[in-house]
Amino acid sequence: MERIPILRMGGLLLVTIQVDMHDRLAMTLQDDLTERIVRDRAKGVLIDISALDLVDSFIGRMISNTAAMARVLDAQTVVVGMQPAVAITLVELGLTLHGVKTALNVEKGMALLGKTNF
Amino acid sequence: MERIPILRMGGLLLVTIQVDMHDRLAMTLQDDLTERIVRDRAKGVLIDISALDLVDSFIGRMISNTAAMARVLDAQTVVVGMQPAVAITLVELGLTLHGVKTALNVEKGMALLGKTNF
Repeated sequence: MERIPILRMGGLLLVTIQVDMHDRLAMTLQDDLTERIVRDRAKGVLIDISALDLVDSFIGRMISNTAAMARVLDAQTVVVGMQPAVAITLVELGLTLHGVKTALNVEKGMALLGKTNF
Repeated sequence: MERIPILRMGGLLLVTIQVDMHDRLAMTLQDDLTERIVRDRAKGVLIDISALDLVDSFIGRMISNTAAMARVLDAQTVVVGMQPAVAITLVELGLTLHGVKTALNVEKGMALLGKTNF
């Protein structure tokens, strides 16, 4: 598969990361997502990482960068479904996802982004 | 990755298929999904296949079987995001996904499953 699908739900975009990210896939996701935020006038982005058992600094930076890009396009990003081991690794790597909101699952993430957006 | 994540949104479950399915992954998905339908008392299942450029008879049967399993557990299945080439292939393979509802995207799929469920 070449791309990670971006699903639109009302004013929100949902991305589920299931595969190991490599450079090109991450770049494609960032391109696609920024384009979709503008095209769909999205106010929020949910990134589900519940399928990730582990993260490295590349993924951590990719999430931070994606959130920063969304923010300058006036969309809030919420990372949902983080596994405990991933949280531990991120902090150990010094990646505290500054400025990125997190929620336990998609439902709570949608609530955080405000039901009015949905 | 060992599993395909199943996201709960209200009374619906959302599965995004992004990776090439092999036997074991398909079996795991069916096990997980049936368990989640019961546990979360889900009334609907959305299977997003927008990332699939092509399908073979294995995937086609897997989708049919999953929908049949959901049905006996009193949950409706909607397949969303099918690409035109996939529709052509499915029909050519003789897999018309009998009894499976389809919708253009997640939003329309949710509407089909009834907003009251959400």
